[in-house]
Amino acid sequence: MFGEFNLIDKYFSARQTQRKDVHLSLGDDCAIVKAPEGVRIAISTDTLVAGTHFLANANPAWVAHKALASNISDLAAMGATPAWVSMALTLPSIDEAWLKPFCDAFFELANYYNIQLIGGDTTKGPLSISLTVQGFVPDNRALTRSGAKVGDWVYVTGELGDSKAGLSVVLDDVKRHEPFALELEKRHYISHPRVLAGQALLNLASAAIDISDGLIADLRHILNRSQVGASIDTSLLPISKELLQFMGDISAAQQCALTSGEEYELCFTVPERNKGSLESALSHTGTKVTCIGQIRPLGTFELHHKGKKLDWSLEGYDHFKADV
Amino acid sequence: MFGEFNLIDKYFSARQTQRKDVHLSLGDDCAIVKAPEGVRIAISTDTLVAGTHFLANANPAWVAHKALASNISDLAAMGATPAWVSMALTLPSIDEAWLKPFCDAFFELANYYNIQLIGGDTTKGPLSISLTVQGFVPDNRALTRSGAKVGDWVYVTGELGDSKAGLSVVLDDVKRHEPFALELEKRHYISHPRVLAGQALLNLASAAIDISDGLIADLRHILNRSQVGASIDTSLLPISKELLQFMGDISAAQQCALTSGEEYELCFTVPERNKGSLESALSHTGTKVTCIGQIRPLGTFELHHKGKKLDWSLEGYDHFKADV
Repeated sequence: MFGEFNLIDKYFSARQTQRKDVHLSLGDDCAIVKAPEGVRIAISTDTLVAGTHFLANANPAWVAHKALASNISDLAAMGATPAWVSMALTLPSIDEAWLKPFCDAFFELANYYNIQLIGGDTTKGPLSISLTVQGFVPDNRALTRSGAKVGDWVYVTGELGDSKAGLSVVLDDVKRHEPFALELEKRHYISHPRVLAGQALLNLASAAIDISDGLIADLRHILNRSQVGASIDTSLLPISKELLQFMGDISAAQQCALTSGEEYELCFTVPERNKGSLESALSHTGTKVTCIGQIRPLGTFELHHKGKKLDWSLEGYDHFKADV
Repeated sequence: MFGEFNLIDKYFSARQTQRKDVHLSLGDDCAIVKAPEGVRIAISTDTLVAGTHFLANANPAWVAHKALASNISDLAAMGATPAWVSMALTLPSIDEAWLKPFCDAFFELANYYNIQLIGGDTTKGPLSISLTVQGFVPDNRALTRSGAKVGDWVYVTGELGDSKAGLSVVLDDVKRHEPFALELEKRHYISHPRVLAGQALLNLASAAIDISDGLIADLRHILNRSQVGASIDTSLLPISKELLQFMGDISAAQQCALTSGEEYELCFTVPERNKGSLESALSHTGTKVTCIGQIRPLGTFELHHKGKKLDWSLEGYDHFKADV
């Protein structure tokens, strides 16, 4: 549990959701929790390391949001209801000016999703944040990557490409002068995990994944696991007006949407018979969804623009073509 | 789940315990597990950072053992039965000469305790290992730090002090020439979590903790939580013959035993009525236990040698005296 630094009382205790299924949290050797009957537990671990996943001088509130949101997004992709989180926080030193906004943003997001911080370890060392989140899925009903069938429709939530464009702003100050650069930078850090959408998909989707490595790379995980192929119409890709203005070219924006990682939108597949119910269920959750293509037999993978085949050379895509 | 480095197949899959309660492990957005009915889940997170908790050139097998054993020890202190572990592994680069012995030792220990690695994240950055282990405790029966009562007896498992002596060897090459130096160095890394002892204590002990910060500091957590004091007879402290020879002086060895962290032995308290059953139950698990003192009213804390008060100035002890 919390180690070298006695940060518990000041930053972590008594300011958060108190869940009834948490019988013991910070301050003993272990947390003690209880899962409801009739559920399985979904568990995901993600680590953000300064210098690898964010710059050491990045806004600490944004870093906290990104760390927790990326983890919650993994739960969303399984249709799980978030419950508990454990935090391993490694800090070079105790820096209140960093810790306060970090913790404020962490608990704001955790409380929003009714997630309780149940334990963790704070240690001295190079800045990194590793979180393990847990949530519940009904017995036998988690969304996985392996259920896509030929003929199913391929959907994505939200809009794609903003995160990669925002990262280019983080990494290159010159881009700050492009239109909407600061908004896109913020979107790189601040995503909104699709928890309600994932739950709505439980009975309707055949496979799902969250977009953390880029649409093509993540769709590839579904196709590999499900032993199928796909056809994607790039003209259907949901692209924000900000991204379009920033890139200045629709084709560049589409390529960005196909390869942008850390989007934390969902990509999922839906059988024809569930298409109507799906669109209706997701509209009730206020989630924008877009059908961007269809599942094809194993060995087929194509990007086309309204039926016209594209031979774009894209990160992930070449590799992909070699695979299928 | 596993990120930048695709290490899953080579190092982590298909070489470990396959538990029936793990429905999905490495390779999807989340692991999916199911706890048995009638249990609560005990969860602990611990991080080891190179340069803070071990030297970067430490034996990777020992580092793996230490990382997992220290976490399992937290479960043992609650009387929990280990089940699942998630690993966040941050590596500066892919170094097979490091990874192979690390993984071999990790899985050897995990398999011994029937623990399955269910997920994790491997990322690039400064070397660190963060583990979240989970286990089961019967409903309403976890051992905590808060149940010690005046008159209860204070026990420890195993022998104390070897870990600190071993650390002094790690940090000072000159000490390698002292008797048993290399054996003590190894003991600093290789501990044996008291899982069976913890389970045996479930019905018998009133409070328990694992010794990670040093006996005095950890006993202090029990006393604070339980709102009691204690009296410890240093002549009863269990000390190995190797430590005694290394230190060359019984009094120095006892002081080492009182302050040695990362021992991963258990310290626990037992009501008078359970003393006989306790000693018999633990002898069945093959665990050495030693009664070293008794719980006293809040405000009392004393170290004595067969009744003769000691006024040692010890790390943790001064602070302690100021508290109670």
